[in-house]
Amino acid sequence: MEAAAEGARVYAAAAAVIDGELALAPAIEVASDGTIAAIHRDPSTIPAALPRYELGRRLLLPGLVNAHSHAFQRMIRGATHRRRAGDPSDFWSWREAMYAAAQGLDPAGVYRATRACFAEMVRAGITCVGEFHYLHHQVDGRPYDDPNELSRQVIQAAADVGIRLVLLEVFYARAGAHSPPLPEQRRFCDGSIDAYLARVDALRGEGVSLGLAPHSVRAAPADALREIAAYARAHGLVIHAHVSEQPRENEECAAEHGRTPTAVFAEAGCLDRPRTFTAVHAVHVDDGDLRRLGGQHVCACPTTEADLGDGIVPALDHRLRGARLALGSDSNAIIDLFQEARLLEMDERLRIGARICLAGPDESLGLALLRAATVDGASALGRPELGRLGVGAPFDAICVDLDHPTLADVGVDAWLDAVMLTGTAALVDQVYVGGVRRR
Amino acid sequence: MEAAAEGARVYAAAAAVIDGELALAPAIEVASDGTIAAIHRDPSTIPAALPRYELGRRLLLPGLVNAHSHAFQRMIRGATHRRRAGDPSDFWSWREAMYAAAQGLDPAGVYRATRACFAEMVRAGITCVGEFHYLHHQVDGRPYDDPNELSRQVIQAAADVGIRLVLLEVFYARAGAHSPPLPEQRRFCDGSIDAYLARVDALRGEGVSLGLAPHSVRAAPADALREIAAYARAHGLVIHAHVSEQPRENEECAAEHGRTPTAVFAEAGCLDRPRTFTAVHAVHVDDGDLRRLGGQHVCACPTTEADLGDGIVPALDHRLRGARLALGSDSNAIIDLFQEARLLEMDERLRIGARICLAGPDESLGLALLRAATVDGASALGRPELGRLGVGAPFDAICVDLDHPTLADVGVDAWLDAVMLTGTAALVDQVYVGGVRRR
Repeated sequence: MEAAAEGARVYAAAAAVIDGELALAPAIEVASDGTIAAIHRDPSTIPAALPRYELGRRLLLPGLVNAHSHAFQRMIRGATHRRRAGDPSDFWSWREAMYAAAQGLDPAGVYRATRACFAEMVRAGITCVGEFHYLHHQVDGRPYDDPNELSRQVIQAAADVGIRLVLLEVFYARAGAHSPPLPEQRRFCDGSIDAYLARVDALRGEGVSLGLAPHSVRAAPADALREIAAYARAHGLVIHAHVSEQPRENEECAAEHGRTPTAVFAEAGCLDRPRTFTAVHAVHVDDGDLRRLGGQHVCACPTTEADLGDGIVPALDHRLRGARLALGSDSNAIIDLFQEARLLEMDERLRIGARICLAGPDESLGLALLRAATVDGASALGRPELGRLGVGAPFDAICVDLDHPTLADVGVDAWLDAVMLTGTAALVDQVYVGGVRRR
Repeated sequence: MEAAAEGARVYAAAAAVIDGELALAPAIEVASDGTIAAIHRDPSTIPAALPRYELGRRLLLPGLVNAHSHAFQRMIRGATHRRRAGDPSDFWSWREAMYAAAQGLDPAGVYRATRACFAEMVRAGITCVGEFHYLHHQVDGRPYDDPNELSRQVIQAAADVGIRLVLLEVFYARAGAHSPPLPEQRRFCDGSIDAYLARVDALRGEGVSLGLAPHSVRAAPADALREIAAYARAHGLVIHAHVSEQPRENEECAAEHGRTPTAVFAEAGCLDRPRTFTAVHAVHVDDGDLRRLGGQHVCACPTTEADLGDGIVPALDHRLRGARLALGSDSNAIIDLFQEARLLEMDERLRIGARICLAGPDESLGLALLRAATVDGASALGRPELGRLGVGAPFDAICVDLDHPTLADVGVDAWLDAVMLTGTAALVDQVYVGGVRRR
């Protein structure tokens, strides 16, 4: 969808979260370049000459930031819940179904699957996605004529849908310690760290918004991690990796390295710079891991982590040790960051047996969960200008319908908690990216 | 809403779950009394004279049965997630906020709060609710002129909204062992088991669909449980009770009775008849409890049990020991049995670390979860004629929109699993109760 740019204008709403605080009856002035020029809390300061859009009984929130997605996995939504007798039915058997889907995609298929997924994200209020992209080559592992062919399909899908993309380019080398890639993993593999970085160089030269993504300690050997850390440092890029999603991953890592996955990433230099590393999942972590991740990000993906039997991200422990919590739709069986945010808190309540885990006394839990779904996701993606409504930020915004039955009779003081702790993406009825309306 | 009755007619849909199986392109013939007269799988058998409603790309499911609700608690949606320093923020502090809301309601307030809640239920595809009703008397405990005044407000709210109601009349006697009711519990208390049963007698005489509900072993002494069991047996009524929701409840029960809450109910005769007792929650249960509940129902309320830090219902263990699993929206912070059904399965995956817990090999998990949200809830409420689409059953049905973005591109084989394992109530776009369209 190509949407027309507009001139300067003003949006008035019942309420908005402005720079992390709930403001009643604000008017947001958007410049013709799609950034926020001013926020008027006093109606008399609104330039009368500007066109004015009345959003009525709507709550304006920053556009949501989805920090971890595998778009093509949406294809197997609902198709992985039958098992045969003898099938262990766990993460690893799910992976077989997912690999089978990955094998069937040509470039046009990657575009179609990704576009459908991104379109659903925009509808759900997601205005920026970190796509953890590992489908790189032909099924037998040979590169396409352009080695970035499939990355370009993802980039095109995002552009056509109007969602912001941070392409997390995955490095994948092996099935595990001392094991070459399985046949169904050949598409993911560049063959060498140099070939991988050459692909990254090309995309970087074109101005693509990028992060580096060594898939996991299982799929990336330690020497590659060191090269990735050095490249990321040299070019100011963030690093994302799957970390301690499954106990077996930890066991294999202990056997190969004699330490935890987090410790392996730290040893390789991936955690040297503050707030540039994102550990996706970080479920099965020990005290040393919590300490190491304290200055970084943890991206939880609660609906996927439940679906795959991964376990509960110890979000309270991560928060208390200083990690920022981001959220991802991961497998995209469900695309709904409101549910992810709620479950981040609710799974902790189940684990701990108490209420209100992710906010301190007198803090707003709704705001804390909104931070995970917005600014802290943007921080994880190396895009600190996103995830907030404030002067100078792009107008990436979503409207929550305060007349939705979920919110009927809910008082102003409880709006945000009700949205974040009882709502779903069905509350969202308008979406803007860079000032352009996308829903 | 008073909806007009209609004559005999036929509904054609892309698919329907008929008597527990997915059927493609069925036509359902509904008689003028609102019951299902015939199900046509062969178009040539459809009486040509009948008006025909084409539901298009919709999946018809039985109306959902919500086996455990406290309607008025919807009033505090979103309002219980702030705490002060020093507040332990657990189930018991949440209860204080809930009691405060309960104190403020006069009969008109009970009607308004209940009606708003039931209206949201119908919108979410719930066609029958078991209302666990304990607001009986004036704030100081004195009965209204009609001791069933507040029960009648609930009955009227259900009638006006068009939802089927099973009124689970609560018996509440005390704050705990050897403790009289707290001031804020006086409204709940009839003062004697005879006064309680007199209220029940009056409603029963008027043909109200009823169940007996000793609140919990904390609130009901053992002699009252014996009288309730005898009355229920004499009149063929189901019994519902809160069972082992919180560890403290078990500890206090052990101190008073020297056994578990489930054992106390069993000892009092509440579990003598198969399939007539429903243990709501049954989270903190031991092996003996699982065995005793094997011939009965367990009603799980996963969103509430997470919200209140109760813990995970061991649904797999209950299922393997032969309990039927029903679902409830309980506190009504969230009203969405699709989410409850999904979390019933997903919380087990988190607890156990494997996938596909609530269906055996080659069984459909989607159908198993739909059973919990329909027939097994109806069974728990003593209404076996509900919760299914089949000849002779009332046409209580909901439409799932197969063109909803959640279901776009999902293949026929995965429809049910996708609906039950990735969907929400937002998929529902038409609702019928007894053949009358209510949404």
